[in-house]
Order: sequence, then structure tokens, then C-alpha cells
Amino acid sequence: MNIYADNAATTKMSKAAVDAMLPYLNEIYGNPSSLHSPGQRANEALSGARERIARLLGCEPRELTFTSGGSEADNQAIISAARQGEKRGKKHIISTAFEHHAVLHTLDRLAKEGFEITLLPVHENGIVLPEEVAGAIRPDTCLITIMYANNEIGTIQPIGEIGRICHERGVLFHTDAVQAAGHININVKEQGIDLLSLSAHKFHGPKGIGVLYAGKGIRLTNLIEGGAQERGKRAGTENIPAIMGMAAAFEEACKGIEENCKKVTALRNRLIAGLKEIPHSVLNGDERQRLPGNVNFCFEGIEGESLLLLLDEKGVYASSGSACTSGSLDPSHVLLAIGRPHEIAHGSLRLSLSEENTEEEVDYMIAAVTEVVAYLRSISPVWRDLVNGKQQFVIK
Amino acid sequence: MNIYADNAATTKMSKAAVDAMLPYLNEIYGNPSSLHSPGQRANEALSGARERIARLLGCEPRELTFTSGGSEADNQAIISAARQGEKRGKKHIISTAFEHHAVLHTLDRLAKEGFEITLLPVHENGIVLPEEVAGAIRPDTCLITIMYANNEIGTIQPIGEIGRICHERGVLFHTDAVQAAGHININVKEQGIDLLSLSAHKFHGPKGIGVLYAGKGIRLTNLIEGGAQERGKRAGTENIPAIMGMAAAFEEACKGIEENCKKVTALRNRLIAGLKEIPHSVLNGDERQRLPGNVNFCFEGIEGESLLLLLDEKGVYASSGSACTSGSLDPSHVLLAIGRPHEIAHGSLRLSLSEENTEEEVDYMIAAVTEVVAYLRSISPVWRDLVNGKQQFVIK
Repeated sequence: MNIYADNAATTKMSKAAVDAMLPYLNEIYGNPSSLHSPGQRANEALSGARERIARLLGCEPRELTFTSGGSEADNQAIISAARQGEKRGKKHIISTAFEHHAVLHTLDRLAKEGFEITLLPVHENGIVLPEEVAGAIRPDTCLITIMYANNEIGTIQPIGEIGRICHERGVLFHTDAVQAAGHININVKEQGIDLLSLSAHKFHGPKGIGVLYAGKGIRLTNLIEGGAQERGKRAGTENIPAIMGMAAAFEEACKGIEENCKKVTALRNRLIAGLKEIPHSVLNGDERQRLPGNVNFCFEGIEGESLLLLLDEKGVYASSGSACTSGSLDPSHVLLAIGRPHEIAHGSLRLSLSEENTEEEVDYMIAAVTEVVAYLRSISPVWRDLVNGKQQFVIK
Repeated sequence: MNIYADNAATTKMSKAAVDAMLPYLNEIYGNPSSLHSPGQRANEALSGARERIARLLGCEPRELTFTSGGSEADNQAIISAARQGEKRGKKHIISTAFEHHAVLHTLDRLAKEGFEITLLPVHENGIVLPEEVAGAIRPDTCLITIMYANNEIGTIQPIGEIGRICHERGVLFHTDAVQAAGHININVKEQGIDLLSLSAHKFHGPKGIGVLYAGKGIRLTNLIEGGAQERGKRAGTENIPAIMGMAAAFEEACKGIEENCKKVTALRNRLIAGLKEIPHSVLNGDERQRLPGNVNFCFEGIEGESLLLLLDEKGVYASSGSACTSGSLDPSHVLLAIGRPHEIAHGSLRLSLSEENTEEEVDYMIAAVTEVVAYLRSISPVWRDLVNGKQQFVIK
């Protein structure tokens, strides 16, 4: 059995998304900036895709900028808000300790320029408290950037409440919705979101394409200068095939959101219940306020990487956390942020499901993980010390 | 008859390029940063594509960074060289007046930061003189950025000579090779190029993907911060399908370069000869030292936009210059740079051919342009004044 359970890293493109791309990889290849008929045909496709995505996010088409993905959109959102704030002498930004590195590293860059960054705690359940957001706002705060749902542990933040607080206090609010878009309902106007980033390949769309939503009155700063594409705010010939694939995938995902959410949540709960049976294991992140497909556990006494490799041999394709940092030997900054000690954070496993997974697969994964964890513990010196009482268990 | 003659704006993807993408839009969808088998399969594809492209450019795979296209690569190349120069107190950059806006606007941004920019003349033939490059170098020059071939008038610059001068004088050399790559042979080491940008959709590859070559010892500055992809220099999940399409298209283009060059040059020369017969017309850019497929004329007494629209009705898909600036009413900065007066620069036409065009199409285009120019002149008050002697002809 081969089971793909790494949908938070990337998803298989849906047939609808591939089909939507194909004509634009073949016969409709004009440059949308060209005045001639093939160019105008591409330009109409571009406008249509923008309108469809805007409708699903609850905003105006002209408030959307197409980017090469979520990271670019995050970077541009934060840099733009910072530049706008700077002009009015506001150089304080509020975020959390467990954002994606596209956010954290951009904040690091701004910190080097003299911005002050407050990283709020996310507590053991992986959720930011709105009252702590409110309490951190200062007269010089120009931006609050808090992710919609965490990419490793899947916890969903109280975005609507944070949006309301931001609007009451006149502070711009950005949310990295890369993990949330297409999986839970988003309406930027109703939720008081000023800037939002999303990425198509997280909801069965193509890689290499994303969206930056920026509400009226927000002046975007270019990351990429050049031609006048995207109202002059993002240069480069528009990636029409990918944009068409993204629009189709997003429509399909949003249309099926209730049904998929119900189905995937049931699979997730079954998987969580099964893995909880493994002794000295702990679920990371709040059990209810999390993405439908996200399961993230720590198992005491083992290394996450070995776990992944043995699961791979059994045909279970999982992750220890974020794919973006898989080359790193450091423990996950997300797990550290929710208070897991280093030695536990190293033994993490993320299984991220989609509506294509089945109950049978879930049961197979429970058996596989149980077996592999037991095996790894049987050869682990750390585990021996824990069992012998030479070390204390962290996870009861 | 429908004739696509706007290959400088974008090209139709080749079958090989589309075929190379398809498996990665379907079954091979892993994230190359993931440790599991589907991820590693994607990662192997990524490495393979990087090796193939490096071989064709004459460099090491690790010297290539995949970007979302030519504009991003241009921006990152220039910003990186500027930051490197700045650290050593060198804040002078040499370029030309007719670069792509991805270069010029990035230079504008640096000028606002205190960099000094020297824009060299390109003379009436649209070619930079190496001795003028050498003469402009100062002790504080950190970068020379000169495009390989111009996107509007197709003139090819003496890149090897400029590269040699840069190396002798210890100045970094970047070339925007977006129009040249896949059309004329490039070897970065032999030509002394330190930084080079290219874009796949200009050589029958996909949109939304490009390459930045940066030789050893050049420290790239991130435009996009985040995950550790591309050795930490360009964050965001790699666009594997597009990268595979690009590698296939580039291989195909480079393999056929001699034959295509011969074929397309013959078509170009036939088209130039035919259009020269139109009275008061002039070819823009040197007649020989130009891209195989580039034809760019000015016709006195008419507006380029009307010319395009009427040609479009006849099924000839052309451009007045760069697609990236087609929304603008300003005359082409390229034509102004080669000394065309405003009133002439407005009456420009670019026909950019590929190996898919035919002699029959060329003859059709000659007839169509001749007819449309004559018609537009028949209704043009400017033309009447010229003929009546109330205004002087600029083009003899």
C-alpha cells in the first residue's frame, strides 16, 4: 500500500486543475500584455481567473496580485506593510513564534533595519490569545502578521477576532493562509484581513503560483521590478497556465469545503485516536481547533527521521514537520514554541491527510506507526534509559 | 492565415516541453524537500534538470538558482552585486539606456539608495562599444549589467569582449540573456559572464520559470526569504513541472540552435528586404548583428498601435515593441536610445519570428504590412503634411 500523507507539504493536482492548465500550455499561449488577439485571449483568461478567486475570498479582483507562491506573497505583504508603517514612523510589528520561515525570516530582515518585532507566545495548544494580541499593540505598531493555520501542527488561529482588534486599533493585519486556503472558509472582508497570502499547490493546484490579497489603500512595495504587469506591483510575464490551474483548484476546493472538511476530520480523528494508543505519545496542538487533515505527534525516545524512513519503506509518505526545513538538523521551531523540549521535538511525525485518503489507509497508518515506533524504541539507548528509570519520561 | 510573429513576447511551448511537464503535473507531485520517496523522486528530477541546464550554459549545477522568471533573475542578480559592492564601498554601476525595465527599474531603486548609475549610449545601430564600457569603469564600479540581445530591436551586444574587460578590471558582469538564451550560443565561463538571467517562455518553454546563473564567490541576496530551497537563496517550493519543461525546452533549443539560426535568419532577411521596399521606412538596429528572428521597423507618418490592430485583423500577430510596456503611451525607450525622434518611435513594428514560421508567412506579412501602412498613411493628416511639404520627412 502506498499512502500519501504529506498534503501539508504539497498536494497532488486535481484533474480539474490539470485540465484547466492544458489549453494554456498548448494553444492559448499569448502574452496577456500583447495587444493582438492571442494576447487578448490570454488577458481575458487572466481577468476571469482573478474574478473567480476574488469572489471566493470575498474581495475585489483588483485587490489580488498573482505571485510565484506563498513565500513571495508573505514577503511582499510584510515588506509592503513595513514600508507603509515606516513612512509614518511606525516600526513595530507583532507576530508569533511559530510562523512559517517566509514570515520569520522577513521579520529578521526588518529587525536588522531597526524594526522592533514582538513574537507572541502560542501556548501549549498552539493557539494565540486575542487578548495577548491586543495587549501587545503599541502606538508605533504598523502590522500584525499571524498565520491562519500552522503548517506543522495545524492549529487554527482566531483570525476573525484578531482582525476585529486590528481594525479597532488601526493596525494592518496580514495572515499567511497558505495552509488554510481551500481547506477552511475564508472571507477577507468579514474577517477584517488586510493582507493575505495563499499558495495553489496546497489545495490540489499547481506549484509556482500564489496570491497576495491586499485591501484598498495598501500600497504594495515591489519585490520584483520591471514591466507593468499586476498594476505595476509584480513584474514578469504572468504565469497564465498556473493561474488557470489555481483558479480551477480553488473553486473546486471551496465548493467541496464542507463535505471534505467533514470527511477529512473524521479520518483525522480516527488517526489521532489510534496513535494516542501508543504509550508515551502526545498530540501536538489543540485537538479540535486544528486543520481537518492535520495530525502531529511526538513519540518519546525515538528520532523523527528514522521514523520517516521506516514508514517510507512501508509505503507511508509522511513528514517530521515542515518540508521547507527538512534539510535542517535543528528541532522544529514550532514544537519548541508550544513548549516541547528539544529531545521530544526531535521525535515528531506529521501526517497530513486529504479527501483522497481512506479509512483503510488510516488503519494501515496506525498499524505501521505503532509497529515502527515499537521497533525504533527496541533499538534506542534513550528508550532503554527511560524504561530503566535512568532518565525521566517527559511524555506520561 | 494566422501568423504568430511575436516570439520575443512569448513563444508557443514545444511538444517536448509540454511532455516533460505532464508527469510532474500528475503522478510525480512530491515536494523535493520531503524525505520520503515521492519527495526524493521530485528532488532527483530537480537535480537532473539543474545539471542539464548547467551543461548547456557551461557552468556548475550549483551555480544555478531557479527563479519565477527573467525579471526575478534580473532583479536578484543586480541587487546581489550591488549589496556585495556596497560592502566594499563600491556604489557605481554601468549599464545601457536600452535595457529591459527589469534592469532599469532595479537600477532606479538603487539610485534612490545612493548608487551612481552610468547608462552608456547604444548608438544608432543599437550596439554598445566595448571601449566605451572600459572607459566608464571607475575604481568604485561594482557591476556592469548589459543585456545580451535587446528585446525590441534584437541587437546582439559584444558580450565576450565586455566580459573580458570586466574580468581584467575586476568588475562583476551581469547579462540579461532573456532574449538570447536558446537562440544563440552562450557559454558563461568562456564569455566571462558572472551573472546571467534567462526565462524559459522565450524559447518554447513554460511561463513562470527562469534561471539565475551566479558564478562562484558571488553571494546572492534573497529577494524571497523563507525555506532553505535553492541553497537558501530563493525560498518557496520548487516549481518542478515548470523546471522540467524548461530543461527540455532549453535542451531542444540548444540542440537545434545552428539549424534554427540558419533557417530563421533567412526568413528574417527576406522579411527585412520586403519591408525595406516600403517608402520612408527604416530598420531599427544593426542589420547583421541581431537576433535571428528579430525584425523591427519604423514607418513614418503612422501610429504603431493602429498598425497592430489592422494587422491583427489580417491574422498577423505582432508587437510595437515590448509586451511588458504595451499598456504605456510613451514611445519606446529603446527606440529613443538609438536616436529615433518621438514621432518616428511611435510608428514602430516588431515582428519576431521562430523556426515555426515559413517563407509563405513571411511573404504574406510583407504584403499585409505594405497594404496596412499604405492605408494608414492614406488617412493620416501627418502623412498629408509630409507629402505636401508642410513637415519634413525624418526617414528618407
